Amino acid sequence: MISDRKLEHLLICKNYDVEFKDKTTGFEDIELIHNALPEVDKNEIDLSTSVFGKKLDSPLFITAITGGHPAAKEINEQLAIVSEENNIALGVGSQRAACEHPELEDTYSVVRENAPDCLLIGNIGAPQLHLANKAVEILDADILAIHLNPLQESIQPEGDLDARGYLESISEITDIVDIPVMAKETGCGISAETAKQLVDAGVSFIDIEGAGGTSWAAVETYRSEDRYLGELFWDWGIPTAVSTAEVASAVEVPIISSGGIRNGLEAAKAIALGADSVGMALPFLKKSVSQDELNQFIHYFNDSLRIAMFLVGANTIEELKQSRLVISGKTKQWLDERGINTKNYSRR
Amino acid sequence: MISDRKLEHLLICKNYDVEFKDKTTGFEDIELIHNALPEVDKNEIDLSTSVFGKKLDSPLFITAITGGHPAAKEINEQLAIVSEENNIALGVGSQRAACEHPELEDTYSVVRENAPDCLLIGNIGAPQLHLANKAVEILDADILAIHLNPLQESIQPEGDLDARGYLESISEITDIVDIPVMAKETGCGISAETAKQLVDAGVSFIDIEGAGGTSWAAVETYRSEDRYLGELFWDWGIPTAVSTAEVASAVEVPIISSGGIRNGLEAAKAIALGADSVGMALPFLKKSVSQDELNQFIHYFNDSLRIAMFLVGANTIEELKQSRLVISGKTKQWLDERGINTKNYSRR
Amino acid sequence: MISDRKLEHLLICKNYDVEFKDKTTGFEDIELIHNALPEVDKNEIDLSTSVFGKKLDSPLFITAITGGHPAAKEINEQLAIVSEENNIALGVGSQRAACEHPELEDTYSVVRENAPDCLLIGNIGAPQLHLANKAVEILDADILAIHLNPLQESIQPEGDLDARGYLESISEITDIVDIPVMAKETGCGISAETAKQLVDAGVSFIDIEGAGGTSWAAVETYRSEDRYLGELFWDWGIPTAVSTAEVASAVEVPIISSGGIRNGLEAAKAIALGADSVGMALPFLKKSVSQDELNQFIHYFNDSLRIAMFLVGANTIEELKQSRLVISGKTKQWLDERGINTKNYSRR
Amino acid sequence: MISDRKLEHLLICKNYDVEFKDKTTGFEDIELIHNALPEVDKNEIDLSTSVFGKKLDSPLFITAITGGHPAAKEINEQLAIVSEENNIALGVGSQRAACEHPELEDTYSVVRENAPDCLLIGNIGAPQLHLANKAVEILDADILAIHLNPLQESIQPEGDLDARGYLESISEITDIVDIPVMAKETGCGISAETAKQLVDAGVSFIDIEGAGGTSWAAVETYRSEDRYLGELFWDWGIPTAVSTAEVASAVEVPIISSGGIRNGLEAAKAIALGADSVGMALPFLKKSVSQDELNQFIHYFNDSLRIAMFLVGANTIEELKQSRLVISGKTKQWLDERGINTKNYSRR
Ligand SMILES: Cc1cc2nc3c(=O)[nH]c(=O)nc-3n(C[C@H](O)[C@H](O)[C@H](O)COP(=O)(O)O)c2cc1C
Ligand SMILES: Cc1cc2nc3c(=O)[nH]c(=O)nc-3n(C[C@H](O)[C@H](O)[C@H](O)COP(=O)(O)O)c2cc1C
Ligand SMILES: Cc1cc2nc3c(=O)[nH]c(=O)nc-3n(C[C@H](O)[C@H](O)[C@H](O)COP(=O)(O)O)c2cc1C
Ligand SMILES: Cc1cc2nc3c(=O)[nH]c(=O)nc-3n(C[C@H](O)[C@H](O)[C@H](O)COP(=O)(O)O)c2cc1C
Repeated sequence: MISDRKLEHLLICKNYDVEFKDKTTGFEDIELIHNALPEVDKNEIDLSTSVFGKKLDSPLFITAITGGHPAAKEINEQLAIVSEENNIALGVGSQRAACEHPELEDTYSVVRENAPDCLLIGNIGAPQLHLANKAVEILDADILAIHLNPLQESIQPEGDLDARGYLESISEITDIVDIPVMAKETGCGISAETAKQLVDAGVSFIDIEGAGGTSWAAVETYRSEDRYLGELFWDWGIPTAVSTAEVASAVEVPIISSGGIRNGLEAAKAIALGADSVGMALPFLKKSVSQDELNQFIHYFNDSLRIAMFLVGANTIEELKQSRLVISGKTKQWLDERGINTKNYSRR
Repeated sequence: MISDRKLEHLLICKNYDVEFKDKTTGFEDIELIHNALPEVDKNEIDLSTSVFGKKLDSPLFITAITGGHPAAKEINEQLAIVSEENNIALGVGSQRAACEHPELEDTYSVVRENAPDCLLIGNIGAPQLHLANKAVEILDADILAIHLNPLQESIQPEGDLDARGYLESISEITDIVDIPVMAKETGCGISAETAKQLVDAGVSFIDIEGAGGTSWAAVETYRSEDRYLGELFWDWGIPTAVSTAEVASAVEVPIISSGGIRNGLEAAKAIALGADSVGMALPFLKKSVSQDELNQFIHYFNDSLRIAMFLVGANTIEELKQSRLVISGKTKQWLDERGINTKNYSRR
Repeated sequence: MISDRKLEHLLICKNYDVEFKDKTTGFEDIELIHNALPEVDKNEIDLSTSVFGKKLDSPLFITAITGGHPAAKEINEQLAIVSEENNIALGVGSQRAACEHPELEDTYSVVRENAPDCLLIGNIGAPQLHLANKAVEILDADILAIHLNPLQESIQPEGDLDARGYLESISEITDIVDIPVMAKETGCGISAETAKQLVDAGVSFIDIEGAGGTSWAAVETYRSEDRYLGELFWDWGIPTAVSTAEVASAVEVPIISSGGIRNGLEAAKAIALGADSVGMALPFLKKSVSQDELNQFIHYFNDSLRIAMFLVGANTIEELKQSRLVISGKTKQWLDERGINTKNYSRR
Repeated sequence: MISDRKLEHLLICKNYDVEFKDKTTGFEDIELIHNALPEVDKNEIDLSTSVFGKKLDSPLFITAITGGHPAAKEINEQLAIVSEENNIALGVGSQRAACEHPELEDTYSVVRENAPDCLLIGNIGAPQLHLANKAVEILDADILAIHLNPLQESIQPEGDLDARGYLESISEITDIVDIPVMAKETGCGISAETAKQLVDAGVSFIDIEGAGGTSWAAVETYRSEDRYLGELFWDWGIPTAVSTAEVASAVEVPIISSGGIRNGLEAAKAIALGADSVGMALPFLKKSVSQDELNQFIHYFNDSLRIAMFLVGANTIEELKQSRLVISGKTKQWLDERGINTKNYSRR
């Protein structure tokens, strides 16, 4: 049953090492250029950002984690309270189960109850066209995310392996729902070409969810009797820094950079690379045991982002997006090969 | 006697570490680009490929391993049964001994007996022009491979060190046998220039057998009293990924990428680099103790190849050949130096 | 109180590991090209350099370390005696406390007393316009340094976080003081763009103080209850070799290369990269326990600089500035990205 | 006294670790391209090379090691016997002492006595113009080498630190002696620019002696009371592979590649990079305890060189010089920076 699987995912992610092994996000290849003379009052730095009309106090998304299992309700409640308190955005896990099993609805509706003003993001799979409006309704969502997770499906014993028509279906979803539709990966990233396809299909927001953080091949490996395939594909995917630059170079819609981002310094790099905001899942799940830990984590995030902005001389997220940075190593090699001019970042 | 040497080779390869030490195949420098939106039904992926008119269920060759010794007969029998069952291609080891000693013939003929429909590949050395038709006949071969192994000959105490006239001899072999003639290295790879010479000489199939897997300098080191030379040349050769790209850029004939390939993910990279299929020897020798292990290994191979294809959005081997990939590190440096435009792979 | 903080800084720097962790100065990426035929008499090598009319026996600055606390007086006295003896330049730590608390003045005036002929450098922060002339007077300074330290301010609990108007203030300081004004960082380096701003504001000397030596995020981490932010930004900054080349490519004023320089060989690289002299702080603080150790350290510095000059064939600092060098690795990548032609160094 | 120092050098080189620490020769960055179809009979490979009219059986020089001390006589005798037996070239250590102290002459003359037909190389320093003909006479030398060793002189307590006029003096030596004059470094290499100066001064043979093997800063460090400077400059110099390519690109005279070369595989790379032959010192000193060990070492050298030649398809040293190779890593970066087109090696 879906909802048992969801509990397993939560337990595995909380207790096992589910992150990439030998592949990194690539942010270690990115150097923001220190500005010894910032024309900035750090205390006045404005982290706020506006997403489809709603203002966030910080460019931070808690990306899709859970729902659809009794154990998930408490987690979602905690995340909702904290998101409301800090006025950041919050996504929920796949709503398929709840759309099909009304008794699970409250594991999602608990979110809006506790986060009346938050930017909330619903979550369905590409083929679940028929559940789209229901999902929006259950959550009272501001945005509907469609998750793309072919790697997980490949490794997962119960995986859905027919991905034909997904783009078509996404296009139809963008037609039938009234709110903006986001496409999100789940840890393998989105390429320039895929980003263009998504935007052409009507998607108006992309959460890149690249490689370097939670690996869904890893998660499913722990659930499999046979670890061979999961271990082989553990590190598959486009590193988050690369995917961020690829998508930013390809489309005009707003971008969330995510997948392995863990602090405000990495967030600053992601935003300077072209993202509009950043997202995280695993750290929030791990801290969800207490509101204090969640609040402190967000506090650290905001503070480290502010320091990074101060040190490059950016008063606002918009200014941060124009900051100079130097790309080297494997990330530089990838972008060169793909025709993305890294000098546009270092000399602007 | 040749056949004792063959037994020694089998025992050494099974029990000792005979792979390259500090040199790798280069596949770790190759990244297939994740496609979050594959227009593929993984269960419908077609791994089949056609080789000189015969269809294989998977682009997989068990490359030349053995024959010519009583102990080899059982191994060849196992490999034949499994090849037939999985409809993949099977090569045998050098047939020289059997051509000269009829009592050894059955160590080869056992293959066709157990693999009546398989694509079988005979095996002789370049100077064994006179044995060519006999070798084809003993095996009832579909293809005749001519092995090139100057490194092994150099390190082997009994090595044949006069390689003059090999190309001439190969050309004559292509004239006198009725089936396609393949040239194969044995772990040092084939360069663009050599590939051109081979094709000009009439060869219609190249098995590159590059560096990074079984090292024949290593194998012969274990057989030598004096390890000095073997250890010095242990890691000699063109890495498999490099050799694959070199040969693909130079000639039009079909290519097997091999030498250190160990799973379907590496196979997918090799095919996207320009190979038509891949080959392996050592893993099959190691699994040849049981049909179950052999079958499972092939199963893993096919499954991992399918997942890689799913994740790049390829329904067929032909589509896989067009997949985008990014080359970095030492492999990129080598190809740049040699004038092979790596951007043709990343931007196509 | 400021002066307690100063004591803490001294103690931490003397006893804890306060240098960068994973980031280096970049000098290991720089190779001076050996000259097997130097037209040089090593004993006649002239290390002297002239700085705003005063001649130094060696292109060496003890950069700002201390003052403003009773414990600092003895250190400054030692440094002054040794600077006078070796005729090198000496900077003092921030003079703000002494300007505001006359009882601390002697911790600075002790310097001129013991170094009557030395090139002395005063030190204030950018916003301390009103203290500029007082600072010059207390020290009888030849040059007034304005320190830039946004990273330290960010991590320091009591940090001054409003950096707006600093450039304006620097410009005014250059107007109101009669001696040359230097801008100096404190371990994060100065970029080409910042250097231009500083020179446009009237600064006539730049001490780049790049990343790779003492990390002020590190120092403040040891002072904080909460180490999170300090550890995250421990390695922030432009590596010293990079910053040296950036600033040298951007402005015409004399440059001190500093931040992690530890010997005359690195100094030679820095000067060949475009610096006019080099500076160090931490090693001098550590040796300040005895005049002998200080003298020996300077002796080693001069000797190793002389050997490097001998080996590239440079008789004078001016000739050293024209020496060929080869840049590789990360430093090369950074300079390439930023549009600084490294071949100008290797082929001149 | 010179001759005591010479004994110390011998003992240190035999018993201590005197090779470069973190710098390598660069030959690990060079890959000869495997030729699977060599048109070569390995047993017929011709290693012979002609040097100023004398034929050597192998392109191998025992470079300057010793003489001038009673203990050196036995070493030179051994080296002479073995050189004669294998018909390779032999250089002696600096002859200054013997030129000035006739009682030491036999430590050199023993060489010609035991190697009547060998190519022998005398050895003096650049300022020893007045000893040139005497040195030639004592040894009955075929070539006179002038050693350049500014690094050693810098670290050595008794070092000769006035290198002015060396080039002038070299030019005069080429005028006054009747045999070819060679310039040789001693472990720091020769740059393109220095090579041009030497050839313009009349030198007709260059032994590059680059960095990566014996470090004379290291040797002198063991002799110094104070290790500081020696350790700092331990790794100074142009890597041997780089220096070989630099000199080959700059001048037409024959070149010996040396400094850290240890076997025939590295020798093959050096020759393909542009050298005419290779040299070694330290390994011969270490093996000089027995003629058997010396003979075996030369045997290994020749055999490994032959295998490398076989594997690239070279029948002669001349053909080896035309072999393709791929340069990567730091060596590639250096050559790129210096304007040496590495593609000339990989595509010829
Ligand atoms: C326990 C857990 C459950 C998740 N469930 C979903 C999901 O239902 N839908 C989805 O789109 N992403 C899901 N994700 C993926 C995350 O949104 C995110 O893409 C991924 O974890 C990478 O980010 P991270 O490295 O910050 O964890 C889940 C992640 C975790 C850790
Ligand atoms: C035990 C053994 C025997 C082999 N004998 C032959 C042979 O007779 N002829 C041949 O062409 N290759 C022979 N090979 C080489 C393989 O076909 C292959 O080129 C090489 O092992 C590299 O592939 P691998 O890394 O997958 O083992 C042999 C390999 C092994 C392991
Ligand atoms: C104990 C200590 C105190 C310092 N105080 C000052 C200061 O007051 N003003 C200033 O401009 N720099 C100050 N610095 C920074 C140094 O001048 C220098 O920029 C920095 O330490 C990097 O150089 P290093 O790696 O050689 O130490 C101080 C450094 C140390 C170690
Ligand atoms: C013990 C010893 C003594 C040497 N003495 C001399 C010498 O007198 N003159 C000279 O030109 N080179 C001398 N060399 C340097 C060598 O000729 C050679 O340039 C250097 O050792 C680097 O080569 P290697 O790494 O093979 O040892 C000596 C080397 C050794 C090991």
